[in-house]
Amino acid sequence: VNGFGRAFRINIFGESHGDCVGVVIDGCPAGIELSEESFAFDLKRRQGCRLGTTQRVEKDYPLLQSGVFNGKTTGTPIIISFQNQNIRSSDYKNQGEIPRPSHADFVAWKKFGGYHDYRGGGHFSGRLTTGLVAAGVIAKKLLSPLKCSATLLEVHGQSDAVSAALAAEKNKDSVGGIIECRTTPMPIGLGEPFFDSVESLLSHAMFSIPGIKGIEFGSGFAAANMYGSEFNDPIIDKEGRTQSNHSGGINGGITNGNDLVFRVVVRPTASIAKEQKSINLKTGASTTLYIQGRHDACFALRVPVVVEAMTAIVLSDFIIRGTKNYSGSLE
Amino acid sequence: VNGFGRAFRINIFGESHGDCVGVVIDGCPAGIELSEESFAFDLKRRQGCRLGTTQRVEKDYPLLQSGVFNGKTTGTPIIISFQNQNIRSSDYKNQGEIPRPSHADFVAWKKFGGYHDYRGGGHFSGRLTTGLVAAGVIAKKLLSPLKCSATLLEVHGQSDAVSAALAAEKNKDSVGGIIECRTTPMPIGLGEPFFDSVESLLSHAMFSIPGIKGIEFGSGFAAANMYGSEFNDPIIDKEGRTQSNHSGGINGGITNGNDLVFRVVVRPTASIAKEQKSINLKTGASTTLYIQGRHDACFALRVPVVVEAMTAIVLSDFIIRGTKNYSGSLE
Amino acid sequence: VNGFGRAFRINIFGESHGDCVGVVIDGCPAGIELSEESFAFDLKRRQGCRLGTTQRVEKDYPLLQSGVFNGKTTGTPIIISFQNQNIRSSDYKNQGEIPRPSHADFVAWKKFGGYHDYRGGGHFSGRLTTGLVAAGVIAKKLLSPLKCSATLLEVHGQSDAVSAALAAEKNKDSVGGIIECRTTPMPIGLGEPFFDSVESLLSHAMFSIPGIKGIEFGSGFAAANMYGSEFNDPIIDKEGRTQSNHSGGINGGITNGNDLVFRVVVRPTASIAKEQKSINLKTGASTTLYIQGRHDACFALRVPVVVEAMTAIVLSDFIIRGTKNYSGSLE
Amino acid sequence: VNGFGRAFRINIFGESHGDCVGVVIDGCPAGIELSEESFAFDLKRRQGCRLGTTQRVEKDYPLLQSGVFNGKTTGTPIIISFQNQNIRSSDYKNQGEIPRPSHADFVAWKKFGGYHDYRGGGHFSGRLTTGLVAAGVIAKKLLSPLKCSATLLEVHGQSDAVSAALAAEKNKDSVGGIIECRTTPMPIGLGEPFFDSVESLLSHAMFSIPGIKGIEFGSGFAAANMYGSEFNDPIIDKEGRTQSNHSGGINGGITNGNDLVFRVVVRPTASIAKEQKSINLKTGASTTLYIQGRHDACFALRVPVVVEAMTAIVLSDFIIRGTKNYSGSLE
Repeated sequence: VNGFGRAFRINIFGESHGDCVGVVIDGCPAGIELSEESFAFDLKRRQGCRLGTTQRVEKDYPLLQSGVFNGKTTGTPIIISFQNQNIRSSDYKNQGEIPRPSHADFVAWKKFGGYHDYRGGGHFSGRLTTGLVAAGVIAKKLLSPLKCSATLLEVHGQSDAVSAALAAEKNKDSVGGIIECRTTPMPIGLGEPFFDSVESLLSHAMFSIPGIKGIEFGSGFAAANMYGSEFNDPIIDKEGRTQSNHSGGINGGITNGNDLVFRVVVRPTASIAKEQKSINLKTGASTTLYIQGRHDACFALRVPVVVEAMTAIVLSDFIIRGTKNYSGSLE
Repeated sequence: VNGFGRAFRINIFGESHGDCVGVVIDGCPAGIELSEESFAFDLKRRQGCRLGTTQRVEKDYPLLQSGVFNGKTTGTPIIISFQNQNIRSSDYKNQGEIPRPSHADFVAWKKFGGYHDYRGGGHFSGRLTTGLVAAGVIAKKLLSPLKCSATLLEVHGQSDAVSAALAAEKNKDSVGGIIECRTTPMPIGLGEPFFDSVESLLSHAMFSIPGIKGIEFGSGFAAANMYGSEFNDPIIDKEGRTQSNHSGGINGGITNGNDLVFRVVVRPTASIAKEQKSINLKTGASTTLYIQGRHDACFALRVPVVVEAMTAIVLSDFIIRGTKNYSGSLE
Repeated sequence: VNGFGRAFRINIFGESHGDCVGVVIDGCPAGIELSEESFAFDLKRRQGCRLGTTQRVEKDYPLLQSGVFNGKTTGTPIIISFQNQNIRSSDYKNQGEIPRPSHADFVAWKKFGGYHDYRGGGHFSGRLTTGLVAAGVIAKKLLSPLKCSATLLEVHGQSDAVSAALAAEKNKDSVGGIIECRTTPMPIGLGEPFFDSVESLLSHAMFSIPGIKGIEFGSGFAAANMYGSEFNDPIIDKEGRTQSNHSGGINGGITNGNDLVFRVVVRPTASIAKEQKSINLKTGASTTLYIQGRHDACFALRVPVVVEAMTAIVLSDFIIRGTKNYSGSLE
Repeated sequence: VNGFGRAFRINIFGESHGDCVGVVIDGCPAGIELSEESFAFDLKRRQGCRLGTTQRVEKDYPLLQSGVFNGKTTGTPIIISFQNQNIRSSDYKNQGEIPRPSHADFVAWKKFGGYHDYRGGGHFSGRLTTGLVAAGVIAKKLLSPLKCSATLLEVHGQSDAVSAALAAEKNKDSVGGIIECRTTPMPIGLGEPFFDSVESLLSHAMFSIPGIKGIEFGSGFAAANMYGSEFNDPIIDKEGRTQSNHSGGINGGITNGNDLVFRVVVRPTASIAKEQKSINLKTGASTTLYIQGRHDACFALRVPVVVEAMTAIVLSDFIIRGTKNYSGSLE
């Protein structure tokens, strides 16, 4: 299933070295201003070509092919595609047979019976996040005045992310990091008890981003070392404002009006220039692998905008569904 | 939305102090042996009345009201309900107006316009997890020989969970903990790229359990301090076995055949016997709250079986969908 | 999949001769007045014990077990169950092996591997429509002031339904009929282009009712003999009122504000007292079958209230989703 | 919602006079041979430029932009788009204000607040069925050896469809018709009781095709005039073969192995060259409308291949889900 969302729904498609990658957005309201320029800022943030990130640069020019008329959304499906241009598939020849450690190569081979497009990770490539960022741009417009901001807190334990990334790169290695996302001002009442809790949907979305290995809301794992009397957030006004925010803005799966706060961890880039152990899937022989190609020493540098996008997508879906379980003709 | 799952789907219902709580299970295969006794062991694990947990004890006798015939599942929906008997609603009188900190009282009031059943947390009560555990019992049968085991690793930083819980209780306080869940042996190929990744669905399920505030797969948050050369799991045989398991058994969202491993954090119980600050929703006045009722000092003690249940439910759904994207007439 | 609906969702469960049948309703708004008496009128309409219908009479007393508090819906799942009491399972002994023509016996045997509850049709029984009618009662309250009315236009070609049914019964035979459903006043804008067209969802719902074999909207099949100049509905005012209503109140899948009108056909009751040909599934031998039990000569007499219920359920779902693709903060 | 399907899912996008129209297909198995030539035959059948159909001819060249590698499907999403080229938007100038009778113009205006692309029907155009046909081509490959065949039984009551269409055209009028679809050989056990009945899903799909106003399975509406003893299909062998097929190959919502047979009615083309009555949405004044542009006198001529496509899409979804409610490790 390559779709996500109930009321505001996205579907992504494409391969790293195919014709294009992109996204279809269903359920976007009519009347939102949108042009190809709207995407430039966030797409730029997702791109590589900065210290510590890959040298492959795609222009990432969004083709807005449906769902927009006279500069505004029409209410019907929006498709945004990105042509692939800067491709060096020769780098990827042997990946059909020798799976790269901690990549999707092995599982793709098994799941798709050898028919998958293995070039550059194919459909599993981080390049697919281009579509997520594009959908996020639209979702952010929908959310206004809510604002989602994700920042990279640390890389390999250091707050100076870039120097940590450069140090790893120098050593033919890679590093990961921790990203925090905060959304404010939050309406009260988004989310549902149990299965459509805000945490459930946000975590579902976050683990759709390649390389995320953990998520925590509010105090998160630190809560395991707190007493209830420390963790509980005293309520200080009728609007539900709390003195502390250990809950991260969510109680019982539902937003309580305080800032929505969570953190995700991004693993170190799987592609490293060092020698690694793997096996040949056809012969079964153990082998040594040197990964070619252009890769990020720390792709966590590029992920904050993807985290923001997925957050905005989830919140847009909730916003369209409403803060009450129904606020129609009954009131 | 109080349902979860695509091929194996559950819906829960009920309130803490209403007639009953329960679950409807849709998509369960025919022919699985099932009787009311099948549930006893796991329901017992979920129950309170142990050191550090609530004194309210329900018999938790499962009424298996449809979907079973001659001791086996029929393939049509199964409903399991639990009558509520041991109720002391008088304990909960004032919760309509004075929301308990870090409980769902405030958001329920806002979202449901004051119409919610506030007694004992109503539909937000941990009692609703009875239905999850019952559904998990069936899912575990379906999964066999896969086995999901969740254990409480620590409470308030201590491996001796019970003494940590008792210490907190003595002090009219509460504590949380960390639970690890491991499933083995795992088939290769469960899960989908992106939105139906195994991490996405498992985290979605975990955050449906009241009180979970974080989840991490494999090395999880520790990955932020690792180099790629440490984190990557060298592949050592044709079946995808890896030397280490920092990925927690998942690459690209898909199971790789190694053990599936994740951890969740359970916050301290929100209900504590200490005085707390809140406000009166009707008058807006600040007030002091003493929570009455019978509560767990550490409900994390009861959560492992719920974590197992939700894991089994998610994996059953994936198993029914298959490890290949389709293995029908094409092979 | 035994669930239906996006925003207002129902799940049904139970067997004809099991403990109970019933329905879980998810997504019902809070604050709707509801008691067990609310269901009496429509449940009565669904019941048998009239001329031409079965002699089996269940009391059909609805147990409202969750989702209602102080006489009003809470916004969380509502479960309504009906205990089975008036059962004569001895009538159904041989159905495990000899499938009744045009019943679900044969397909159930094949699909569920012989594990299904075959007594009285089991989960395929018309008795399951009790839950549909109950959910419809709630949906109708939600829809107000929209009113859905279904009437039996004809039975076996005659407008005097009862005499046609009695004539068939006398002859140990059965008959079907045609039901028309009209909803008024209709809001403009329910439904979506293509897959969530109003016709798509309504027909999906109608064919969930056992025994329905056809549906037509507006002029329906008669349109095949009309010219465009006859069929087209001239628009006569700004509110979209049309001079004729050959479209049945829907254009492009979306309601146009005129009455919503459709007809369904109900086949003759499959259970007849006459000798019929079948085979023994175990031996493969041809055999002659006499159906025992108490059956309707014309169950179409009981279906109008079920058609109304499913119509109200579909329209409630659309109403909750709104007449605009989004009517939130954008306007 | 512009998506349809559970295991085999399609999403369509585009506008008649925008950049392109197309479809994204999710859940298609890996390993199916596919090239741009695969679509030629069915796309040709959908095209106009025959007697009685529109003079607008698009080349309908399918761009297969993802999900195919080395001539075979990869198992990940397939996108197929069709560039729009032969556009004469000047024909459609006034449709923003004066809705064409029995078209979607009025409802689109109301639902999308005037932001919709009105040119040539925009997203409501029959041109969107290009994507349905393309998805159908893939679904048909998946279904093999099942074969879906739809034929136009009659136009305006005549079996000579073309002469009926030409007669109408000559008179500046339009006509509709009746299409029958038959699928054979059918497996036993596709479909589910109640909401995912084969009739429910097929009718849902059929009413997604613009202009369909009715559907009937097997004997359909004629059943209203039959006795049970006539309608019931005697079972004549262990494989469930029946002597007659009044049920259309479905009992209890589930396929019984006999041919799957249904008919749909296509209304006369809404766009006719005759003068029609409408109103100006801005001024409210009654007005007279002459529809310009190139239109089919009988678009029913082009619909059989769309009916086949949607049938194949629905059946593929069921096939992937399996004929048993689960045929995994239990057998």
